[in-house]
Amino acid sequence: MLMVHQVKKLAILGSTGSIGQQTLDIVRKFPDKLTVVGLACGNNRVVFEDQLHEFTPKFAFSSGCFPLSTSVKLLSMEEIASQPDVDIVVVATTGKAGLGPTIAALKAGKPVAIANKEILVMAGELITGMVTQYGSMILPIDSEHCAVWQCLQGESHNISRLLLTASGGPFFGIPQERLANVTIDEALNHPTWKMGKKVTIDSATLFNKGLEAIEARWLFNIPYDKIEIVIHRQSIIHSMVEFMDGSIKAQLSTPDMHLPIQYALLYPDRTANDEIRPLSFNSMQTLTLEPVRYDDFPCLKLALEAAKKGGTYPAVLCAADEVAVDLFINRKTRFLQIAEIIERTLNLHKPVSKPSLEEIIESDNWAEETARKIAGQLI
Amino acid sequence: MLMVHQVKKLAILGSTGSIGQQTLDIVRKFPDKLTVVGLACGNNRVVFEDQLHEFTPKFAFSSGCFPLSTSVKLLSMEEIASQPDVDIVVVATTGKAGLGPTIAALKAGKPVAIANKEILVMAGELITGMVTQYGSMILPIDSEHCAVWQCLQGESHNISRLLLTASGGPFFGIPQERLANVTIDEALNHPTWKMGKKVTIDSATLFNKGLEAIEARWLFNIPYDKIEIVIHRQSIIHSMVEFMDGSIKAQLSTPDMHLPIQYALLYPDRTANDEIRPLSFNSMQTLTLEPVRYDDFPCLKLALEAAKKGGTYPAVLCAADEVAVDLFINRKTRFLQIAEIIERTLNLHKPVSKPSLEEIIESDNWAEETARKIAGQLI
Repeated sequence: MLMVHQVKKLAILGSTGSIGQQTLDIVRKFPDKLTVVGLACGNNRVVFEDQLHEFTPKFAFSSGCFPLSTSVKLLSMEEIASQPDVDIVVVATTGKAGLGPTIAALKAGKPVAIANKEILVMAGELITGMVTQYGSMILPIDSEHCAVWQCLQGESHNISRLLLTASGGPFFGIPQERLANVTIDEALNHPTWKMGKKVTIDSATLFNKGLEAIEARWLFNIPYDKIEIVIHRQSIIHSMVEFMDGSIKAQLSTPDMHLPIQYALLYPDRTANDEIRPLSFNSMQTLTLEPVRYDDFPCLKLALEAAKKGGTYPAVLCAADEVAVDLFINRKTRFLQIAEIIERTLNLHKPVSKPSLEEIIESDNWAEETARKIAGQLI
Repeated sequence: MLMVHQVKKLAILGSTGSIGQQTLDIVRKFPDKLTVVGLACGNNRVVFEDQLHEFTPKFAFSSGCFPLSTSVKLLSMEEIASQPDVDIVVVATTGKAGLGPTIAALKAGKPVAIANKEILVMAGELITGMVTQYGSMILPIDSEHCAVWQCLQGESHNISRLLLTASGGPFFGIPQERLANVTIDEALNHPTWKMGKKVTIDSATLFNKGLEAIEARWLFNIPYDKIEIVIHRQSIIHSMVEFMDGSIKAQLSTPDMHLPIQYALLYPDRTANDEIRPLSFNSMQTLTLEPVRYDDFPCLKLALEAAKKGGTYPAVLCAADEVAVDLFINRKTRFLQIAEIIERTLNLHKPVSKPSLEEIIESDNWAEETARKIAGQLI
């Protein structure tokens, strides 16, 4: 008997980054289920040329503007995201670069697998409105939201709390005053996850978890007072959902981004992948769950405050953090100045409620410029 | 607007035991959702009279044969279980007493909430066959199976492992040779759960977990090689399901049997119950998961061996344990003799494969008699 089998055609935006490369690992693992029709990258020419050679996509884009050595068709990310040939758009870009392509994909009715936090943080209301309007779907590529998504299979109502777990990063338990002279290498030394630099710094400040709370609010339509952050140092429990009756469902696995990527791309199917190491209980596993000490994580506090204020505040939050973290990575500011730059930028912002895309972009531009000015005064 | 609201009518068999009384707590809590039409008990006259007075059921049964002081109609448990008026039969009896009423209820097409392990252990194949044949349903009242059931909501396929958690009981980590003179009071001192005596002793030997593996095999149609037992001392994670992709779902809550009882009775609804304390992460929670050392738990080993052999072996297993534990509770045998009685009884058994109900009952009677003889020789 012949099985008719649909291969899902992917456009991967940000294919040379950490998530992009792991997405391609999953494509390699399941060539009968997934194929690549579009790739887009920033400046990583060497890796991108290899990817084009290996996956021979129809469409490509590079913001680095270097001449591509293959005969691939060059299109903008928005054009790639809305090609009729594309079944799923993977948005693994960083910062606001993924916003336009995400909107283009949603308008074309395509499911968008989002690894890029800024999209829902900056424009959650707009984006989720479009999902409804155009009948498309968001597939979160993120261990926390993937965990919540899995826990909500079969019952997505009667929720009393979303419990987002946070590893706490490399500086957990160290008081603020001792972090004044932290180096970039210390901040990049994440205890459990291997990720890109920006995300790793955002994990060290727990800013990351603030963004995830905002994403969760939009992805699962849950008010902020039902979202709780719990420190879980081992990164085995990826998040939890508590229902009205007091019962909690949790999702556990080894910390490996291949799993949420695979889940999003093959959803609703689950398939064995021998490269994802299962959790073993042949020796003692100790899992801890404990509260966040918010005073130790001012970036998280700022993120949650901006979240609750809403409007254009979250866009400003993102842009200010992007500037501050970029300066820190380039050794131009100190670790504790990240929070300072974000706070001062937020304080200067004149918010717009229920913003349009243009107002969001404007706020973002304003925040970037303002954060740079503030940073200039601090340095 | 008037809401038409169906109140579920319960028959509770074993109403004066630990699970029976907690089931009535749930009825008290949700009088608009649950009502009692039948009650049955063993010998606990004082409690039963109070229950009859409070819940005024239509039908009652007592194996104690004392005259009932109310005007309730006396029926057998089988008759109560198959009354047209009954919507759900709760079988919270001990030992094999629940087998007949369970079959009567299933034949009448009624959902049966089973808290009595022996039913599925002795007659799992027969019982699950009847569920299919008569279009009825089993609702497990047990923290482990309730956890698995919750984890399987929305996706009950692609399972790679069921991970049944076990607290390890009061003697976990103590080698066999030091348990020779254990007293009944020490064995009843369970670290996390408050339960009836028989179940508490079965938890101390981990025999319990062997029975649960057999129940899980039938409830979820999972082969034994996919069922793993994991020691979890804190009784917060009530069990887990691992899927093909390596992702695990777990169910967590405070250890309180009211939760699985409520889940089974109100299924598929979840409703807030302010008497069930939610898990708090305001202080450190430490959860450990570790392997079972089977050599420390011979009763568990025997149970799993009998499980894999199948046929009438599990019925013999149950009956021999019931005799042995009863003698231990009555201070007539020693703790380590429980395993010895079970093992010797199993060794003498001539098994029947695919047994009928009669053959199961015969094996059970044979095992009870044989176990008593063996115990007599040991004492």
